[in-house]
Amino acid sequence: MTATSRGVVIRNGEIVTALDQYVADIYCRDGVIQAIGENLDVPSDTEVVDASGQYVFPGGLDAHTHMELPFMGTTSADDFFTGTAAGIAGGTTSIIDFVIPARNQSLIEARDFWFNNAKKACADYAFHMAVTWFGEQVEREMRQVHSENGITSFKVFMAYTGAIGVDDDEFIGVIDTAADLGALVTAHCEHGLAVQSLQKKLVAAGKLTPKYHAQSRPAWVEGEATNRAIMLARCSGQPIYIVHLTCKESLEAVIRARQEGQLVYVETCPQYLLLDDSVYDKPDFEGAAYVMSPPIRPVGHQDPLWHALSCGLIHTVATDHCPFNQVGQKDMGKDDFTKIPNGAAGIENRMALMYTYGVETGRLTLQQFVDVCCTAPAKIFGLYPRKGAIAVGSDADIFVYDKTRTGKISAKTHRHRVDRNIFEGFEIKGAVTHTICNGRLQYKDGDLRVERGAGRYMPRR
Amino acid sequence: MTATSRGVVIRNGEIVTALDQYVADIYCRDGVIQAIGENLDVPSDTEVVDASGQYVFPGGLDAHTHMELPFMGTTSADDFFTGTAAGIAGGTTSIIDFVIPARNQSLIEARDFWFNNAKKACADYAFHMAVTWFGEQVEREMRQVHSENGITSFKVFMAYTGAIGVDDDEFIGVIDTAADLGALVTAHCEHGLAVQSLQKKLVAAGKLTPKYHAQSRPAWVEGEATNRAIMLARCSGQPIYIVHLTCKESLEAVIRARQEGQLVYVETCPQYLLLDDSVYDKPDFEGAAYVMSPPIRPVGHQDPLWHALSCGLIHTVATDHCPFNQVGQKDMGKDDFTKIPNGAAGIENRMALMYTYGVETGRLTLQQFVDVCCTAPAKIFGLYPRKGAIAVGSDADIFVYDKTRTGKISAKTHRHRVDRNIFEGFEIKGAVTHTICNGRLQYKDGDLRVERGAGRYMPRR
Amino acid sequence: MTATSRGVVIRNGEIVTALDQYVADIYCRDGVIQAIGENLDVPSDTEVVDASGQYVFPGGLDAHTHMELPFMGTTSADDFFTGTAAGIAGGTTSIIDFVIPARNQSLIEARDFWFNNAKKACADYAFHMAVTWFGEQVEREMRQVHSENGITSFKVFMAYTGAIGVDDDEFIGVIDTAADLGALVTAHCEHGLAVQSLQKKLVAAGKLTPKYHAQSRPAWVEGEATNRAIMLARCSGQPIYIVHLTCKESLEAVIRARQEGQLVYVETCPQYLLLDDSVYDKPDFEGAAYVMSPPIRPVGHQDPLWHALSCGLIHTVATDHCPFNQVGQKDMGKDDFTKIPNGAAGIENRMALMYTYGVETGRLTLQQFVDVCCTAPAKIFGLYPRKGAIAVGSDADIFVYDKTRTGKISAKTHRHRVDRNIFEGFEIKGAVTHTICNGRLQYKDGDLRVERGAGRYMPRR
Amino acid sequence: MTATSRGVVIRNGEIVTALDQYVADIYCRDGVIQAIGENLDVPSDTEVVDASGQYVFPGGLDAHTHMELPFMGTTSADDFFTGTAAGIAGGTTSIIDFVIPARNQSLIEARDFWFNNAKKACADYAFHMAVTWFGEQVEREMRQVHSENGITSFKVFMAYTGAIGVDDDEFIGVIDTAADLGALVTAHCEHGLAVQSLQKKLVAAGKLTPKYHAQSRPAWVEGEATNRAIMLARCSGQPIYIVHLTCKESLEAVIRARQEGQLVYVETCPQYLLLDDSVYDKPDFEGAAYVMSPPIRPVGHQDPLWHALSCGLIHTVATDHCPFNQVGQKDMGKDDFTKIPNGAAGIENRMALMYTYGVETGRLTLQQFVDVCCTAPAKIFGLYPRKGAIAVGSDADIFVYDKTRTGKISAKTHRHRVDRNIFEGFEIKGAVTHTICNGRLQYKDGDLRVERGAGRYMPRR
Repeated sequence: MTATSRGVVIRNGEIVTALDQYVADIYCRDGVIQAIGENLDVPSDTEVVDASGQYVFPGGLDAHTHMELPFMGTTSADDFFTGTAAGIAGGTTSIIDFVIPARNQSLIEARDFWFNNAKKACADYAFHMAVTWFGEQVEREMRQVHSENGITSFKVFMAYTGAIGVDDDEFIGVIDTAADLGALVTAHCEHGLAVQSLQKKLVAAGKLTPKYHAQSRPAWVEGEATNRAIMLARCSGQPIYIVHLTCKESLEAVIRARQEGQLVYVETCPQYLLLDDSVYDKPDFEGAAYVMSPPIRPVGHQDPLWHALSCGLIHTVATDHCPFNQVGQKDMGKDDFTKIPNGAAGIENRMALMYTYGVETGRLTLQQFVDVCCTAPAKIFGLYPRKGAIAVGSDADIFVYDKTRTGKISAKTHRHRVDRNIFEGFEIKGAVTHTICNGRLQYKDGDLRVERGAGRYMPRR
Repeated sequence: MTATSRGVVIRNGEIVTALDQYVADIYCRDGVIQAIGENLDVPSDTEVVDASGQYVFPGGLDAHTHMELPFMGTTSADDFFTGTAAGIAGGTTSIIDFVIPARNQSLIEARDFWFNNAKKACADYAFHMAVTWFGEQVEREMRQVHSENGITSFKVFMAYTGAIGVDDDEFIGVIDTAADLGALVTAHCEHGLAVQSLQKKLVAAGKLTPKYHAQSRPAWVEGEATNRAIMLARCSGQPIYIVHLTCKESLEAVIRARQEGQLVYVETCPQYLLLDDSVYDKPDFEGAAYVMSPPIRPVGHQDPLWHALSCGLIHTVATDHCPFNQVGQKDMGKDDFTKIPNGAAGIENRMALMYTYGVETGRLTLQQFVDVCCTAPAKIFGLYPRKGAIAVGSDADIFVYDKTRTGKISAKTHRHRVDRNIFEGFEIKGAVTHTICNGRLQYKDGDLRVERGAGRYMPRR
Repeated sequence: MTATSRGVVIRNGEIVTALDQYVADIYCRDGVIQAIGENLDVPSDTEVVDASGQYVFPGGLDAHTHMELPFMGTTSADDFFTGTAAGIAGGTTSIIDFVIPARNQSLIEARDFWFNNAKKACADYAFHMAVTWFGEQVEREMRQVHSENGITSFKVFMAYTGAIGVDDDEFIGVIDTAADLGALVTAHCEHGLAVQSLQKKLVAAGKLTPKYHAQSRPAWVEGEATNRAIMLARCSGQPIYIVHLTCKESLEAVIRARQEGQLVYVETCPQYLLLDDSVYDKPDFEGAAYVMSPPIRPVGHQDPLWHALSCGLIHTVATDHCPFNQVGQKDMGKDDFTKIPNGAAGIENRMALMYTYGVETGRLTLQQFVDVCCTAPAKIFGLYPRKGAIAVGSDADIFVYDKTRTGKISAKTHRHRVDRNIFEGFEIKGAVTHTICNGRLQYKDGDLRVERGAGRYMPRR
Repeated sequence: MTATSRGVVIRNGEIVTALDQYVADIYCRDGVIQAIGENLDVPSDTEVVDASGQYVFPGGLDAHTHMELPFMGTTSADDFFTGTAAGIAGGTTSIIDFVIPARNQSLIEARDFWFNNAKKACADYAFHMAVTWFGEQVEREMRQVHSENGITSFKVFMAYTGAIGVDDDEFIGVIDTAADLGALVTAHCEHGLAVQSLQKKLVAAGKLTPKYHAQSRPAWVEGEATNRAIMLARCSGQPIYIVHLTCKESLEAVIRARQEGQLVYVETCPQYLLLDDSVYDKPDFEGAAYVMSPPIRPVGHQDPLWHALSCGLIHTVATDHCPFNQVGQKDMGKDDFTKIPNGAAGIENRMALMYTYGVETGRLTLQQFVDVCCTAPAKIFGLYPRKGAIAVGSDADIFVYDKTRTGKISAKTHRHRVDRNIFEGFEIKGAVTHTICNGRLQYKDGDLRVERGAGRYMPRR
């Protein structure tokens, strides 16, 4: 990263952290917050952001993205540059992406591939290491990336059996190794074999359109896997982090575990909070835009997720950002839903959606909004207080939000490099007016000034 | 079976069925109940049982036994003759045992082995077919035993991975095939790999005595597998029968499924209702007598099982009768609990235990007692009203119970062919005074008159 | 009742009881079942019902009716004659109605009033005694009706505070007295004061149409009261019977109690199984026809009730039959939903609805259908095996059901003496072809031959 | 309060807030925190506290105390001076006590009495207003104390029927009035009439010793009332705060409500986390020391409370400090447990107990410890960030804790003015070394320098 010689001061904004709310100035220089206080004295060359009447939030941390992911015969449409740029426009100033080796591929080889891709990022980034098979070599390489790269979280897929999914024996191997390293395991919870069995029956019955994607992965198939992941974690005496939890069944498994005293971290995504499975009924293959795993759930699952967020049983909101274009990618599954690349975009919209549909509706306090989008992911994944905080010494990652503006989400105007937006037409209350990233003003009122490669890799402890 | 020329009439007993209770005579001849009524006229050569002041119950059906089972390097101590004889002494007049092929063994070959062993039984018997692996051959052989032998229930072990256990892919294969046959799948629910992982850790820590058997298979490992079995059954749109359910976690998984409308049959055993895990603390390796899978549970699990029985959420009480002698068998695991043959005796004691600790304590009505021990297993496994009923035309399998007597269970006096009784010292209210089996009086006041080979194989529909 | 000199024989029907199913003849005379068997010899003057290919069920027992009830300024539209006649046309051959004293009225005085009204019944009847206030006199009179009239069940209303509702102090008095008598307490569970508070707010907001009736008594208000009733019963160490349970919240309270080992009997009604609250949106005040308490629930509550029935957590299905005409009665609340008389008809339709929507859909077995509609209420309320059974010696209350017919429910054709039917237009599978009541054929293929006053009062033990 | 001319600086401590943890100096003067930072420049007359190697926590806020409470014929043994002094010695620097009018007494009259008593406090204090009856006058007076005194929380007792307890009608009146004021209702949840009924039965059976106190108020009686309070709050569309929650049943009612999206705040106390009902078996009437309502619960309830604290479902830990001497007070109930004054001391021990048994055992993070003891009560009751924070501008209420020391709780050494300590003999990890209250060092290494009357009343918004 190029050091910036000028500082930035944000004046008179209402600073909101996961705990507090107060009006003050923030002075940023050399990438970090130098001072917080009233009427700060700053050097005369300092760039001034007038935040009067606006909220000043810590920059968002999206702990679940897949930039330029090779998947299902194609590659996700945002690369590390375009994806992180879209994030900055939306107030998200850092991400944790995934290194995903192929089954039997060296973790080191995969790491090198992803680290190379990520060099073009314009926001700071870290990596979870997906572990897609297990054995002596994998165990050794888990230890290697932990010590060499500060990768302290490992992911297992319980879905995608036969591809990147692991069986329970491998899961146990991964979590026992992670336990030894003091690292955290995260899990994608769907019963892969059950999904395949249901897919086979649907395909055999000629049920091939996008809506059968959802039917092949019902909530109870996720609920079962969530319950199982929690049990396997308990065997190892370890906490576990459930990625993109979507349904009541999973939530109930989590609540049972919490009542027994087990530490289970839970992540959900805006699409699971805000959409229902009627999206799959859209004509002209438009339902394909919503094909992701787990799928969007029927009405009845969204409210419990909101309630769990509001009482602290869900800790983080990430995006699972993984866009594929309708034309040329999604349409690979035109005649067979099992061939539709799974995923959608979201990184630019997360903060505004959560503010609009969380804070403005009264479901979340401002503090909770900051916590689930910025602070809790940083704490859980070892990046706090570098990220997720507005405090002297923290990275100067901040965004300013004018709650009086209004807007509407659309693929026509979004900065995601993809031809659809699953939140098309959603009304937004408020708007990001400024994003400071590493102490530099990178977004101002629609003007995106990001710099390819300015993002730094963040090793963790 | 040799036809009996003389009939038997049971006079003036209080007949109890799963629905009713009334005083009448029962006339049995040619193996079936010929008449029920007051002051029945019967041929003069009829043997008369005076049941005044006593209960007259349908003969017990024990739907879970393992006679002469080759297991863990030895063979269970009761053979089909001694085991069914002990049952008759205790009021149980028929059993369903298991054909258990080795992994990769032909189901047909295993069937022939078990059918041959069973010829010595003195009570009627049927078989569940355990399916311990899966593939085209197995599917074909499942169909064959269904059509040739009237075997309408198939069992999968989720424990014993690597031996007779199946993985989820095989489970799905079995239940889909059973679905096609209209047959019922029963499941032993413990997560085999989790158990192995816990065993490995315990053994590595030098924790080798019998009590660590229980720690290697905690309730939550069973609860997880129960939850998973239910989900896999749901994928196939099938009911499922959970064998020997022992704990709250499993019960809660069942209750969740029932609230969703899924049909889940549940079996438990007297040992899980009446013992707690303090038995594993017995000195001198005596804890080994209680080594079975699932293990005896901590205090706190027994009451919920009783409550579930009493409100109909547990349907049947079987024994999992599978005895091994302390000397020469259990002691194979003297230095390593993982080598202790799993199992214990119970067939002789089931009816008396359930009467004493169920009916006499007010936990079960007389009708519920009959239902869970006699009628429900017959209905679920396709043997009703041949078995489990006192009705004209039903098999004349009946026992008379004098509730005024008292007794005490002991290995010194039991008829199980094994050197320990896990209910040693348990007080019993009442006693079986007569057992009629296939219309013949085979037990009378301590005098056991069974005939080797008199039992008949019962095909089912 | 006039004794009938001729007997009736039902030939070749498929007899279904709560336990069994078999083809046989039934010979009835002098009001009782004389014989059951194949090819019964009967006197030549015996009336013959050919039931070949039809089901033969025990006569239905409706344990919750309100004939000619003075309520909310009017009187329910069916009297004991017309109401029981409608029941017979629908296969229901006995009822348990309620004596409901006014607050501070003598129970004895009320009893005399109701017993006098009931003399015109054409089917057998019993009474629950509602206890609407408490004190020394009430306690004495509870004992009196118990010993003099064999009234062994007492009802409390937790709703209708200030009118017939009791507070918790009175509830405790009632259940402690019942405990002493060995009698059963039944409870209408809604929090009366909460309802009044919600009503007041709705009325103040000008929300006066029938749909606000449902909003003034939400499911959670019933759930709370159910939970409380169960707790109060636990204080007395008594079982409790919850009348007309309608919702998930209540069911969950019951399940919690059952898991703790408490005996809670539960009743529901066809309207709560088959209707949802969209009925209140009907135009032209037609929603008033569905005004009853508790109200019809939103979608999402019906399935859990069916599931609970099917797994034995709901024991009985009654009707709460209490019709009021739209014209002249319901319209008293034209301008204020709180003035609409609460109640609707159902006694004629219960058996056909439960057969059609329970048995034919696969939700209930034939045995469960018989149990919940006939046998369980008889057992719980001390009328078994006189009622609810097909057994020698039982009352000859039987109906024959031809499952091959089809029909449709309509106020135009029903025998309820009221101008609306809340199941208007419901398709019915099967039809009652014959009803035998006290050994006499009182309904045959549309021809209703009931006799005013033929019904007998049934004291209970 | 006398303004202090000298400031205090706390040097080099590890500052812990509900969110953060970092090493810095804190400079306090004129009652507030003036600056936080490294190597702060302070006036030379500033008193220096060297906190190197120690934790620096916000002063504790005990939101549930009863100083000099007239109750059950006597008065709680600590007055506002001795009670708040004991708190300061233990790191608690402010309290919220209760004004408790007698039934039918004017709230204003009671307020004046309590405000007068409280003048002697040496730490800051606020009041909840208990509402013990309801009517027009009460409603008016609720509004009056809200506007005149900044009393923004009102308490109802569901126990103590006939004395200070309210019925549900009164509860609804209180919460509707509070709703209108934007004030919070807190509830003591036990079903008063059920308790009285159980008491009567126990007394009648001659069961009069302290242990029957617990039997007269079982967990399910609290669980019921908790469930009811939540429902009543839902009727008013209001949040509710459950004081001293003790048991699984209550917790489950809370969890159900949270899953439905209702906001329920929960408080528990150290005695419910750390003691079990075996304390009532102590000989020589010593069990009386533990007589409080709700009572100490059986084993099995404590762990769920800890787990709920750790996952955020319980928000605050208060003490319900209300001591009575064994001699001269508790012994009023020597012959009848219903006459034992209810209550015990705790204010001095709360912080050390929660640190020792919460943080040191790994059940709570340091941040959670601060949150439940200091920050969350301040936020919920409108005192944040004045109290519960370490931030510039907040009240200078701070304590320094040396985690390396050890100690043991005893009535011999505690500063509570009472002859028993219910935590007698409990080992403590760490010790309060300094307490700053309103900017003044009031406790230093065992030296308590409190000033009678230095505490200020805190109106709230």
